[in-house]
Amino acid sequence: MNKQVERKGKYLIEEVRRTQVPYGSLAVWFLGQESVIIKGDGVTVYIDPYVSPNLDRTFPAPISPEDITNADVCLITHDHDDHLDKGTIPQLVNHNPAVKIMAPAMCEPQLKELGVNPEQFLMAAEGQWTSFGPKLRVLPIAAAHEEMVRGEQGNPHYVGYILELNGVKLYHAGDTVLFPELVEALSSHQIDLAMLPINGRDYFRNARNLAGNMSYREAAEFAAVADFETVIPLHYDLFAGNAENPGYFVDYMYKHFPEQKFHVMARAERFVYVSAKAFLEKE
Amino acid sequence: MNKQVERKGKYLIEEVRRTQVPYGSLAVWFLGQESVIIKGDGVTVYIDPYVSPNLDRTFPAPISPEDITNADVCLITHDHDDHLDKGTIPQLVNHNPAVKIMAPAMCEPQLKELGVNPEQFLMAAEGQWTSFGPKLRVLPIAAAHEEMVRGEQGNPHYVGYILELNGVKLYHAGDTVLFPELVEALSSHQIDLAMLPINGRDYFRNARNLAGNMSYREAAEFAAVADFETVIPLHYDLFAGNAENPGYFVDYMYKHFPEQKFHVMARAERFVYVSAKAFLEKE
Amino acid sequence: MNKQVERKGKYLIEEVRRTQVPYGSLAVWFLGQESVIIKGDGVTVYIDPYVSPNLDRTFPAPISPEDITNADVCLITHDHDDHLDKGTIPQLVNHNPAVKIMAPAMCEPQLKELGVNPEQFLMAAEGQWTSFGPKLRVLPIAAAHEEMVRGEQGNPHYVGYILELNGVKLYHAGDTVLFPELVEALSSHQIDLAMLPINGRDYFRNARNLAGNMSYREAAEFAAVADFETVIPLHYDLFAGNAENPGYFVDYMYKHFPEQKFHVMARAERFVYVSAKAFLEKE
Repeated sequence: MNKQVERKGKYLIEEVRRTQVPYGSLAVWFLGQESVIIKGDGVTVYIDPYVSPNLDRTFPAPISPEDITNADVCLITHDHDDHLDKGTIPQLVNHNPAVKIMAPAMCEPQLKELGVNPEQFLMAAEGQWTSFGPKLRVLPIAAAHEEMVRGEQGNPHYVGYILELNGVKLYHAGDTVLFPELVEALSSHQIDLAMLPINGRDYFRNARNLAGNMSYREAAEFAAVADFETVIPLHYDLFAGNAENPGYFVDYMYKHFPEQKFHVMARAERFVYVSAKAFLEKE
Repeated sequence: MNKQVERKGKYLIEEVRRTQVPYGSLAVWFLGQESVIIKGDGVTVYIDPYVSPNLDRTFPAPISPEDITNADVCLITHDHDDHLDKGTIPQLVNHNPAVKIMAPAMCEPQLKELGVNPEQFLMAAEGQWTSFGPKLRVLPIAAAHEEMVRGEQGNPHYVGYILELNGVKLYHAGDTVLFPELVEALSSHQIDLAMLPINGRDYFRNARNLAGNMSYREAAEFAAVADFETVIPLHYDLFAGNAENPGYFVDYMYKHFPEQKFHVMARAERFVYVSAKAFLEKE
Repeated sequence: MNKQVERKGKYLIEEVRRTQVPYGSLAVWFLGQESVIIKGDGVTVYIDPYVSPNLDRTFPAPISPEDITNADVCLITHDHDDHLDKGTIPQLVNHNPAVKIMAPAMCEPQLKELGVNPEQFLMAAEGQWTSFGPKLRVLPIAAAHEEMVRGEQGNPHYVGYILELNGVKLYHAGDTVLFPELVEALSSHQIDLAMLPINGRDYFRNARNLAGNMSYREAAEFAAVADFETVIPLHYDLFAGNAENPGYFVDYMYKHFPEQKFHVMARAERFVYVSAKAFLEKE
């Protein structure tokens, strides 16, 4: 069976289901933009699943909403269409009645309209660890896309997440630019694997109402400064007018931080991240 | 301890010593150019160790020859200085008396002068599997750098190697251009992890007596055509006049083969390669 | 009138007609691949006009064959479709009865079939200056695409051209790789403006029967070594499977030869090349 078939639809989901990684590692699947599946210790997490059909995409999603039958947890970073996907959420809750969905407070009404019931929903509480059973805990981190926006209760509209799962600390930035508090906060966390947008922002995208993110330069430097063990670029592949070349990320990293580990995901790749501490005999 | 210290000298060697990876995976360390350490199932293999001091290098080797105290097997692809290193071999055989060294037949006299004794040396016999104990077997593959050159007995002067170790099939191409027999041969092997040079060749480098290799375009397409599960680019970082930008490899891959898995190594990175078949429950 | 309209069809041709550049300069229009219009001292030269409709092109030609009504001279470098265009030549000779067409000897039968009459045709005689009236003279230079091929009379199948016009010496390389005689010959000519292919060549393109050219690295180094005052890259834009990124040419030039002048043409741009000697007061 070739690569194209293998990593699509039910075959991909079956690969997720069968994958069991040792302690200190996580399996990651890349579905495009910031959409990823994370699995470790038997727990399957979807972050910003964005897989409904859409002609504006440069390539079709490797899975369809109805393929998602294995979600334990779903994390939503903000309410934009490519993160909180109106075409995906209804089927996801339908096929995964036990799923827990965490999102910024301001997403709650919309998620409920899409069929998320009160027992399924958890508000992303900035700076507060939430446990999802005994194996996974999650810490929402306020993000600025491009502005830091807060609701009346002070809850951020945009967040990223730190996950602790299977001995690995993973940071998914969501959509965000960099700001001092973010760099400072992340630097204190000894992140193993960071997943960062690299598409940047500029005057003309702003003029087209596209809110921006950190650039590939900022992502590379953020990784080096915050001492992320490994960094994966996201958010560069899906929309022609808001894309970036991951080769530039690699070029920049190679020139400026040749000792910084990174990985560029192939489409729908299963990447097994092995943390620096894993697979080492005790000293 | 920061990245720079951690991955150098005896610290790096200690990391190699302590690393034990599960079945279906291999640990790989990148020392620059085509110099790598491979470890799996308790067996440590050096390929083209090139770590003696040299002012022409763009960066110092992460380890020194005297640091190599853990070599079970050493594979040499050809007799050029950056592959058969006169500064490394004497210390390597000195500190690793039980090491086995495989190289093209034409390297034998030179290796013996450098202190390799007859029990340590094995000729790279094209197309013949050689077992190094019960865990590792190695298949030399004739290479063309840029010409296919054979000695009087017909033995190739340039080789690459296929290794079977810990359930993984790894191909290290050595220095080579592509030719039909190579593409055909490798296509039949179901390689998991291929390590390929990407620096290319051209008129002016030939005029400076630099024999060339496949280019990043050829390496990317080779990976796709021969169905390598994952490909790692090599031979682009060490000499200013014969370098290549790994970002171009990524750009080309992303544009033309977005589903092809690859990994670009950070300097002295420990990369744990997990084959597609590993960490999967039985069906 | 915006750029898109201005630089198309009869508007572009009208721009060519109206353009008059001072002594020591030439106007150049870039039509894609190696297709260019050169004008100086009232003489209009087409080189490899390739403008007939073709669905394989990544963009339509800025002009159509019937737009060409101003050709004094047409130079053909070899008989491949994207240089000797069966869709362009018949209309070109039809609308420009006084045009002179120079091409390698082996193209003569094909050109005659396409309607070129004996008075219009001139054989490209290697190493021999031919005058086209009192203002323009042309020197064919043997090329190797990728092989140097000669007919029974010894005439090369592939050529480039040196033009002397309006006080400027221009070299259009046609399709060629580099070889010692070419580098040597060009080094002796004090070329002002060189136009060189940059798409390179590789195993897989050869396997698809695509003959290759010098790469962007070779073109950059050729310019520096042969002391071209300015170099323009060609042959990178028109066919997806045989393209190159002109940014890599710029990147390489900037890193290795930061003082070498070059210009990357916009599509259908009118570039006025001003030689280093022009527009200088007498000392």
